[in-house]
Amino acid sequence: MERNGMIIRLATRDDVAAIAALHSEDDLGGHGDTTAPEALDDYLRAFAQIEANPAVFLHVVETGGEVVATFQLTLMRVMTGRGALHLDVEAVRTASRMQGQGIGSVMMEHAIGFARERGCKSVKLTSNLKRTDAHRFYERLGFEKTHAGFKLKL
Amino acid sequence: MERNGMIIRLATRDDVAAIAALHSEDDLGGHGDTTAPEALDDYLRAFAQIEANPAVFLHVVETGGEVVATFQLTLMRVMTGRGALHLDVEAVRTASRMQGQGIGSVMMEHAIGFARERGCKSVKLTSNLKRTDAHRFYERLGFEKTHAGFKLKL
Repeated sequence: MERNGMIIRLATRDDVAAIAALHSEDDLGGHGDTTAPEALDDYLRAFAQIEANPAVFLHVVETGGEVVATFQLTLMRVMTGRGALHLDVEAVRTASRMQGQGIGSVMMEHAIGFARERGCKSVKLTSNLKRTDAHRFYERLGFEKTHAGFKLKL
Repeated sequence: MERNGMIIRLATRDDVAAIAALHSEDDLGGHGDTTAPEALDDYLRAFAQIEANPAVFLHVVETGGEVVATFQLTLMRVMTGRGALHLDVEAVRTASRMQGQGIGSVMMEHAIGFARERGCKSVKLTSNLKRTDAHRFYERLGFEKTHAGFKLKL
């Protein structure tokens, strides 16, 4: 899918290093992401599992032949809502140098279209409490802040 | 697994009507759940998809031969954190008449143990902003409120 000169497509194995680089730039996640060559195998193993899961769709956004953003969509079937289907959005990340150019909107519009096509009842995501700019962005797109997100680190 | 006289186990097709009944009691979700017989097919179809997904584990809690609670666990592999695995907890529901008897703790302890055994980096869940009692409960268990949960209804 192309929009505003940006190509949105499923990630391939060749994108794995670029995706790791995007996450390693993130100042807030604190997830230990790195472009160190010895970490590449971890990312490749994760990618293989993600690719093998028919409910999970790891995406990249490409412009000028370069991967500039990534997001992961997961179709989640639950028993609530008469067995409804929802779309979960995870691991959204745009390259720092590309921020403020509408890539976030392009990703979210793609996610919403993806969810509609598959008959999802909602699109859900969580955003770190510190990312207040992102919260305003999601609210402008029509998302409502309905839940608190809890995490137990193991 | 048995704890405090409660059996925690994976749901089977025979539990589907009881799970629908648990969700239909919920005054807050507003998800349109019902015990109407014509809805049972929808729940059975959803159950078949959940059961077929090797990353999803729909549980029930049984006591005295009756299903009194349910929760759904999903293993989520993401690229962040060097391709980390997380456990997502969804659709947690205890029968109204059984609340305040520690069933929530039993379910969450089970989820945390399940996540540890599989090498997850975290257990994640969202809780409706109105369920402030539940928020205190999760915080007592060691969960931190780190994220805001957004939803776009379709």
